[in-house]
Amino acid sequence: MKQLDLFVISDSSGETALTVAQTALSQFPSLKVNFQRFPFIQTTSILNGILKLAGQKQALIFHTLVDPALSNLVITFAREHHLAEVDCLQPAMHTIQALTGEVPESVPGLVHNLTDTYFDRIAAMEFAVAYDDGKDPAGLLKADIVILGVSRTSKTPLSLFLANRNLKVANLPLAPQTQVPKELWEVNPNRIFGLTNRPELLRKIRQERMISYGLPVESAYSDTHKIQEELDYADQIYKKIGCLVIDVSNKSIEETATIIMESLDPKLISHEFDR
Amino acid sequence: MKQLDLFVISDSSGETALTVAQTALSQFPSLKVNFQRFPFIQTTSILNGILKLAGQKQALIFHTLVDPALSNLVITFAREHHLAEVDCLQPAMHTIQALTGEVPESVPGLVHNLTDTYFDRIAAMEFAVAYDDGKDPAGLLKADIVILGVSRTSKTPLSLFLANRNLKVANLPLAPQTQVPKELWEVNPNRIFGLTNRPELLRKIRQERMISYGLPVESAYSDTHKIQEELDYADQIYKKIGCLVIDVSNKSIEETATIIMESLDPKLISHEFDR
Repeated sequence: MKQLDLFVISDSSGETALTVAQTALSQFPSLKVNFQRFPFIQTTSILNGILKLAGQKQALIFHTLVDPALSNLVITFAREHHLAEVDCLQPAMHTIQALTGEVPESVPGLVHNLTDTYFDRIAAMEFAVAYDDGKDPAGLLKADIVILGVSRTSKTPLSLFLANRNLKVANLPLAPQTQVPKELWEVNPNRIFGLTNRPELLRKIRQERMISYGLPVESAYSDTHKIQEELDYADQIYKKIGCLVIDVSNKSIEETATIIMESLDPKLISHEFDR
Repeated sequence: MKQLDLFVISDSSGETALTVAQTALSQFPSLKVNFQRFPFIQTTSILNGILKLAGQKQALIFHTLVDPALSNLVITFAREHHLAEVDCLQPAMHTIQALTGEVPESVPGLVHNLTDTYFDRIAAMEFAVAYDDGKDPAGLLKADIVILGVSRTSKTPLSLFLANRNLKVANLPLAPQTQVPKELWEVNPNRIFGLTNRPELLRKIRQERMISYGLPVESAYSDTHKIQEELDYADQIYKKIGCLVIDVSNKSIEETATIIMESLDPKLISHEFDR
């Protein structure tokens, strides 16, 4: 297995460069990558020190530096020292400037500005935590999106992912032995999404949970017949509501979240999606 | 204000291209951008339909397509129809291939593979929700990171952000009138991070919370002297513990999270950071 040192250099937190690097590297599963992140790099002197280290390690550099002088320093150094580098920001900025004629601000970290949208996002995250797992049925009526599903259908991480996109999400577990709160029937069905999964996959996931809790692997919780009963019960509820049902088997959280965001009527949301 | 139509085209969820687009556009605050996301585009016929629409709208295209045939189709179409496009993935893949000699898998969505790391992340998110706001002091002893702070210092969103990086985070609110759980004194101080803020900023944030709750704006909760008392109390606790203190005033969640991740001793974590 090939080893690779990868430096992420950014004038802000480095999340963008890290995202691009991880997406590209996922296409090369045989590489073992040692990531090192250098955030908030905004001066030539500190950048020079990092580049020297990159030279010693023959590191691949992914960078997002809004100041062209700094990104050019990386590019020139890499060329002179036979290093590989990927500029994750300047090409996009050049394209936008050429298209619109606008001049970039060149201020690091603008994407994290403390704007209204940013505070909306924090509020949405707090909402998701407050109304996780059916904690308070009042949340069903205040939410942009209501997620339903039996145990271990990824309701919590899905709610948090959508919260990160400024959506207020409440989730409610379904189980045959418990009653759904009456508030559920007052929610617009277009806001409701029902999760389902294949029984055998759910069984495996639940067995793993039992192991992680140090509990016996075989129980009613991980019994295929009981699981099928639960899923049938959930299906009945979904039909009665008339909501969209998403099979999450072999779907990542991001994929399920994207399906929900694409299906959601924008008129049902009070704020912007992405920006 | 200039209007701009922006298409995000991806063979997976489109998160990477969206991240790059938002980071680049944050440098052009005068542009009003209308985002449209086209995820899971994996066939020429569907891609052609989207490109036609992009041509009609003269949209700027950000794309992440692992199949070179598809990304080349976008590039060729854009050139012929005088559209601007930014390829957020192929340049990085080319660089990695040239550097290592490895051939990419060219399978869409690999970054979302259901790997161990992925399940770790989901477990970390569930951990953050379970041990949010001092709900259960047992979490303090199981956590990779413990975050302390008075009300409204962004403990919850920070915990969730760190969870997204596979770190198990418990957070605990500090208030002079309540006692800290005895478990806190058993935690390694290097795992503990204390948040603080400027009193006047905290006051503004709390007043906004009161408004959003429909409560009177002026109360002990938003009184500057009371806030100063709370912050002094928190500072005493931080000194007693000997933990790192982070002033979150004018810092984004991402910035605070990055400072924590950079300060954390990797030996204190049982799993990998980023991959």
